[in-house]
Amino acid sequence: MVINDNFFMRLAIEEAWKYQGLTYPNPAVACTIVSKSGEILAIEAHHRAGEAHAEVNALKSAYYKLTKDKYILSLVSSLDIHTHLLSNHNNIFHNCTLYTTLEPCSHSGKTPSCAYLISDLGIKEVYVGSYDTNKVAENGNMILSKNNCVVYNEVMKNECDALLKPFNTWREKNFVFFKWAQRLNGTTDEGEITSQESRKNVHAMRDVCDLLVIGGNTVRVDRPTLDARLVNGKAPDILIVSREKEFDTSIPLFHVGNRKVFIQSDFSKLKEYKNIVIEGGSNMYELSREYVDMYLCYIAPKLGGNEVFKNNKDDFEILNIQKNTQDIIMWMRRKV
Amino acid sequence: MVINDNFFMRLAIEEAWKYQGLTYPNPAVACTIVSKSGEILAIEAHHRAGEAHAEVNALKSAYYKLTKDKYILSLVSSLDIHTHLLSNHNNIFHNCTLYTTLEPCSHSGKTPSCAYLISDLGIKEVYVGSYDTNKVAENGNMILSKNNCVVYNEVMKNECDALLKPFNTWREKNFVFFKWAQRLNGTTDEGEITSQESRKNVHAMRDVCDLLVIGGNTVRVDRPTLDARLVNGKAPDILIVSREKEFDTSIPLFHVGNRKVFIQSDFSKLKEYKNIVIEGGSNMYELSREYVDMYLCYIAPKLGGNEVFKNNKDDFEILNIQKNTQDIIMWMRRKV
Repeated sequence: MVINDNFFMRLAIEEAWKYQGLTYPNPAVACTIVSKSGEILAIEAHHRAGEAHAEVNALKSAYYKLTKDKYILSLVSSLDIHTHLLSNHNNIFHNCTLYTTLEPCSHSGKTPSCAYLISDLGIKEVYVGSYDTNKVAENGNMILSKNNCVVYNEVMKNECDALLKPFNTWREKNFVFFKWAQRLNGTTDEGEITSQESRKNVHAMRDVCDLLVIGGNTVRVDRPTLDARLVNGKAPDILIVSREKEFDTSIPLFHVGNRKVFIQSDFSKLKEYKNIVIEGGSNMYELSREYVDMYLCYIAPKLGGNEVFKNNKDDFEILNIQKNTQDIIMWMRRKV
Repeated sequence: MVINDNFFMRLAIEEAWKYQGLTYPNPAVACTIVSKSGEILAIEAHHRAGEAHAEVNALKSAYYKLTKDKYILSLVSSLDIHTHLLSNHNNIFHNCTLYTTLEPCSHSGKTPSCAYLISDLGIKEVYVGSYDTNKVAENGNMILSKNNCVVYNEVMKNECDALLKPFNTWREKNFVFFKWAQRLNGTTDEGEITSQESRKNVHAMRDVCDLLVIGGNTVRVDRPTLDARLVNGKAPDILIVSREKEFDTSIPLFHVGNRKVFIQSDFSKLKEYKNIVIEGGSNMYELSREYVDMYLCYIAPKLGGNEVFKNNKDDFEILNIQKNTQDIIMWMRRKV
């Protein structure tokens, strides 16, 4: 195994994928910080919009590792972490190298931008995966360069671009991902398939989705709630795709507060939403195929069941695969 | 992400799994070496019986990283690497920490044992995952301790023990693994499913298997060769499990040199072999269930096919999952 810049970037990429689907409307980003002597000081991701950026989380961990100043661990808001770092860094980061999957942000709002923070801490070497194409007046790389930081661009760019795909899609239009859960042998029927941990992960994604699309048959058979209760999250609006418009309104999904439910025979509603999850089996897969940007498949390592995810001859590219305690979580792109 | 001893051990464990199935009759082992300042100097595995142990491969990489002495890169045999390290180390390893998934070997044969090598290089801290239960006169941990090395045992022991399972099984009896390849939707029919890279990996495993078990129906339909040609390897003997004993002898598997082919209606032949792969679909899965120690599943990220891996209600524990360029490679244990 070669321990080089790609190795450090790959650690960041893997960490970032753990939060894919959870950071809307922000991108999934992570950052590795390595000391002059080559020690990995931190590998941290951005977790959720409104919380600290990946670079800030990584600088916080690295600062603690270098100083053992526990006070910083009590800080949660990005502003507080920025302020503490800027007042107390004592140049400890001067010879560190920072690897970030995305060009550091240049926008100063409630907190200084990550690019200014990195510059102000005196970091002299930054490796960047993807460019931030959302350039305002100036961009992060330029801020770094102006402040005597050497920036190496396009490190594992393809892998970092794949990670950014949802974010870049939100900018152009909406982002639509199709999520399904199956057993190892492809079956999707007979009740709960994946672990509670996996279902919590799905609920955390629903919490940041504005629309959840489901098939009429699934609603009739499963009588689902389709909310984000496992993470005390916000329930998305629902689009039931069905030719038949009559439903038993005692089905729980109709009784979730602050939610709209649409019943339509097509997908035109998608245009009105930004971050959309389609959940279903192979029928919905087929129906929604032309609208989907990415696929998210949970595989429980089990055999059994009867109804197989069977249609189509599609090939996928696996963008990332992770394992939680029990199941596989896999993000994919359909090959064209 | 916490960067601690478990993190370094986990890097070794992941590296070792890449060679699972390829090291027979040796265990799959890997080793991480970290410098005093916390820099990862090497993460290396044992690749194949007869080649250098994981610790030796890691010390070789670490030595090169520290000295830039290119000569060591030209050395392949374990004896040559040992000799070069012992003559040229100049105490550069004194303050390094070594993480190994298995207690270092204590047996001095053609080369000094890894335990003596580590001691002689002056390494003062070793983290060990699993114990070597094959203790001869003295064991590796004891050699290290006697030489002023502090040994921390049982670091991620469960994960390291899972990695050792085939090795420990060979000692007791034979080791039997069931290998299948499927599409994402569980289908196993219609020609080649996985990539050339995955098939090469299978051939490399066949090369170190002494028996390959296959169903009569698969032989009749697929007319396979079942050798290790993609890696220029040795073809294993074949057991065709079939009630019907007549086969068209023009089927290629009958024409591979230095191979025995048995046709039997039961699995009694397994007792005469040590490292056994069973290949097949769900029929063979069902038939061989009571003989199998571990499962190896290749998943191609594709839909399509018709015949599904469908029987049983078995649950598995995923021991390791890796992705090569295209496919998923997953080792599992059936839950009882």
